[in-house]
Amino acid sequence: MKNNFIVAFAAAVCVSLPAMAQTEEIIEDFVPSEMNQHGQQYPMVNSQGYARFKVNAPEAQSVVVTLGLGGQGGTKLEKQEDGTWIGTTAGPMDEGFHYYHLIIDGAAVNDPGTNNYFGSCRWESGIEIPAADRDFYALKNVPHGNVQQVLFHSPSTDSELRAFVYTPPQYGKTDKKYPVLYLQHGWGEDETAWSSQGHANLIMDNMIAAGEIEPFIIVMTYGLTNDVKFGTIGQFDAKEFEKVLVDELVPYIDANFNTIADRDHRAMAGLSMGGIETKLITLRRPEVFGYYGLLSGGTFSPEELDGNGVHKVFVSCGSKENPDRVVESVNALKAAGYDATSYVSPGTAHEFLTWRRSLKEMAPLLFK
Amino acid sequence: MKNNFIVAFAAAVCVSLPAMAQTEEIIEDFVPSEMNQHGQQYPMVNSQGYARFKVNAPEAQSVVVTLGLGGQGGTKLEKQEDGTWIGTTAGPMDEGFHYYHLIIDGAAVNDPGTNNYFGSCRWESGIEIPAADRDFYALKNVPHGNVQQVLFHSPSTDSELRAFVYTPPQYGKTDKKYPVLYLQHGWGEDETAWSSQGHANLIMDNMIAAGEIEPFIIVMTYGLTNDVKFGTIGQFDAKEFEKVLVDELVPYIDANFNTIADRDHRAMAGLSMGGIETKLITLRRPEVFGYYGLLSGGTFSPEELDGNGVHKVFVSCGSKENPDRVVESVNALKAAGYDATSYVSPGTAHEFLTWRRSLKEMAPLLFK
Repeated sequence: MKNNFIVAFAAAVCVSLPAMAQTEEIIEDFVPSEMNQHGQQYPMVNSQGYARFKVNAPEAQSVVVTLGLGGQGGTKLEKQEDGTWIGTTAGPMDEGFHYYHLIIDGAAVNDPGTNNYFGSCRWESGIEIPAADRDFYALKNVPHGNVQQVLFHSPSTDSELRAFVYTPPQYGKTDKKYPVLYLQHGWGEDETAWSSQGHANLIMDNMIAAGEIEPFIIVMTYGLTNDVKFGTIGQFDAKEFEKVLVDELVPYIDANFNTIADRDHRAMAGLSMGGIETKLITLRRPEVFGYYGLLSGGTFSPEELDGNGVHKVFVSCGSKENPDRVVESVNALKAAGYDATSYVSPGTAHEFLTWRRSLKEMAPLLFK
Repeated sequence: MKNNFIVAFAAAVCVSLPAMAQTEEIIEDFVPSEMNQHGQQYPMVNSQGYARFKVNAPEAQSVVVTLGLGGQGGTKLEKQEDGTWIGTTAGPMDEGFHYYHLIIDGAAVNDPGTNNYFGSCRWESGIEIPAADRDFYALKNVPHGNVQQVLFHSPSTDSELRAFVYTPPQYGKTDKKYPVLYLQHGWGEDETAWSSQGHANLIMDNMIAAGEIEPFIIVMTYGLTNDVKFGTIGQFDAKEFEKVLVDELVPYIDANFNTIADRDHRAMAGLSMGGIETKLITLRRPEVFGYYGLLSGGTFSPEELDGNGVHKVFVSCGSKENPDRVVESVNALKAAGYDATSYVSPGTAHEFLTWRRSLKEMAPLLFK
């Protein structure tokens, strides 16, 4: 156990928090996590990346937070005299957003201190370890685009489905038409992920305000991923979702928004299982999408793209995932003459800071 | 205890569920509440209005649901051999939406079975007892408007604030301009309430599809109500919120949406504390709003409206609130020559079915 702790701690220090190497002492500069509910003090985070939790559970026998360093089995809270339970992670966490929940006497429930984020096929608690580069997704006094909840009829599923549509700041004030990125969440998540924990709208607002990108629309819908069992992911073909996306949602968006409705101005990207969907659907329907992005969601080989006519490929992951595979696959694409870009997010794993950064890196490359 | 139960039960039967009078036997036709998380079976509701809860908490000593008949102190769940806890309300609940949470060994946490709704100044669990008239707020295959998340700069609070804007189905396809209703949530709630638990967008979609109303825009923002303590509500003057609403948000909406930007095409209404805000702000700023709605949120006297120039007043509440006061106040307004309408929601208390129905009754009266 102690060895595990040292190994995990050392890894975290080396990769994401080199400034921590000089000390293991916890600095008492904790502040409320920015993902907390209004007015809630806990959970807190400090400048080193430690997280501290406090839960009121006067009659409980055990309170555990499912968050901590790898292999530690979460953070066990200690009961206080006033009936609250307090505990601090055994070491600094990776920068960025983390899902978690509480186990109170065996019951898996959310921390009443935090807002809720859909992950692991349920609404989860969330905490944010401030990242050094957090300015790019901060809420600032710049012109803001809107995130529009759209309900569209889906004949193939016989239901009214939901999408969220980011429209940039000047959208609708003129007849100007915009390119569109279809951006998918991962397994266990839903259509709320990219604009909630992903801050996709704030990333766009800030890049547009800084003149770093030309404005475009982003469409985020539910990828029908959450009924897929992990053991069967190899058989997942995304054909049901392809119908919803390509035959139902794309026409709805083009009919109801000011879009440039052709493949040269339409991109598809996704994180994790959303990347798998992106790969499956773009390879089968190259006439619909001209730009592809896989964020911690696989790679393309030159053979797979042969004859596809793709304009650009973006492939990324966190440095704690499998960055070599990402970089090598993109190098192979380049060698075969494709316009491809790889990106590795420093110090992050299969989590949302990897994907926020990936969106920031991918956005300027699209529709060029 | 038994007497309380009989009184409460009889009241519920008489007012909202007359068909129940013949039997106290629970009919085993429970189905998952429509407010549940995807794929979750519990909580369940039956055709009589009983609610049944099931929570996994194998090591807990006590699990209580803060929902039940008045005076019953909630519903105590019973531990099962498999580590789950199950319980059914002591009688039928009022039709419509109810907030609640769990108390697990003294910890106030949400039911992992349900989605989350902001009420009581925190994200709460929610359950829906199907109402006989639920069709008017059902999600149907009709043309849908969008609910747009808007972020606007607020100089008076030095922050970026959020509003949700319902735009009707054909909005933006032509240059057509629309009237606007500013619609406020109650104390403990926030700007998500009306389009989440309130279904305001679905109510509008359905009424527009049925030709029952001319389309209009609805704007929903946070009323700065939740830092007000109940003991000081008498001193609450809504002056900070008036600045945000009238001097910051109204101009933002008029600059960024296709509105008819005058008092003759601008209404304000609110539920509970949102009604108090509506009254305070419309009386101080009659040049801004021409139509007023108080939903379980007070009344107007003829003297208060003297010289105000209001076009129409709508006042409502649930039959289990103070309906006489609502009806009498509106009769007094009518006698004084005002165009005023009262509405009493049958069988409901200070809860969201009262306000969904109130919106449905109020909408056809506005902007006429």
